[in-house]
Amino acid sequence: MTFETAPPRAEVEFHCSGKATGKMRNELDVRMVKPFTEPSHALATDEGPFHGGDASAPPPLALFVASLTGCLMTQVRAFAKRLGVQLNDLDVETRVCWDWAREGRTYETAPKSFEIDVKIDSDAPLADQLALVAAAKRGCFIEQTLGRQNTITHKLKTPEGWISAD
Amino acid sequence: MTFETAPPRAEVEFHCSGKATGKMRNELDVRMVKPFTEPSHALATDEGPFHGGDASAPPPLALFVASLTGCLMTQVRAFAKRLGVQLNDLDVETRVCWDWAREGRTYETAPKSFEIDVKIDSDAPLADQLALVAAAKRGCFIEQTLGRQNTITHKLKTPEGWISAD
Repeated sequence: MTFETAPPRAEVEFHCSGKATGKMRNELDVRMVKPFTEPSHALATDEGPFHGGDASAPPPLALFVASLTGCLMTQVRAFAKRLGVQLNDLDVETRVCWDWAREGRTYETAPKSFEIDVKIDSDAPLADQLALVAAAKRGCFIEQTLGRQNTITHKLKTPEGWISAD
Repeated sequence: MTFETAPPRAEVEFHCSGKATGKMRNELDVRMVKPFTEPSHALATDEGPFHGGDASAPPPLALFVASLTGCLMTQVRAFAKRLGVQLNDLDVETRVCWDWAREGRTYETAPKSFEIDVKIDSDAPLADQLALVAAAKRGCFIEQTLGRQNTITHKLKTPEGWISAD
């Protein structure tokens, strides 16, 4: 399927199976299942000494910030072609900051700031470059996700079956 | 720094430098810079035929879903120790779905659903396991981020310097 042959609307769905291994390492098998199935990707996360891990893989937040950066970059490049903006080169710098607070024996976190600097090498007029970034933001799955208040539903396996953990 | 020696409050910040290479591939260098600096992680994203890429690396959404899954798993394991819940094994299945809609020459997206199934192998009482999942949700940076409406600020480089692209 390509953009030209895609239906006007579709659902895009990803599944991930995570298995705890090592001290804090997780083996993650991720694949797109809609609108068509793609081969799965073997990924992993680990933690450093703070969490007693072996730092054998990037921490989850590194994957997260990389995914946001890569997603916006994909849209800028994909839409540059479609909007007729010549693009010689593209560099993006992303900074994401969270607040962290101890709460008894555990801790709580909250997002604080998201900043993305886009460096487009192009002879296109500035207005066209700004329009390209605006379209990329609307097309970026992860930016659109972060811009909304999402509900995540959790289930926990019990001997009697799955129950809600929310 | 460990949990025991960490201050009661801190900022956790990650930086990512993305460089467009190949047809749709992005080289991503990610590192934690606060509350302490960690070695950087070399990651990459690519796209498949839909976007004219070479599928030489996972797509950004695969990193994103893996980061969410890994983040919650990290918290479950880290907090199991602190809350005294014995944990023999942990498997998590995550499903994330987005709506995709063609809009002229580009497209727009919106998140639709987030489901996380947690399978804890433990002899601990169910109430303790549910309390563990609840604490893990509060401690999971990515879950807490997705549960809020975040503002992402963008800048674009021009010959005269950086300007707002929002």
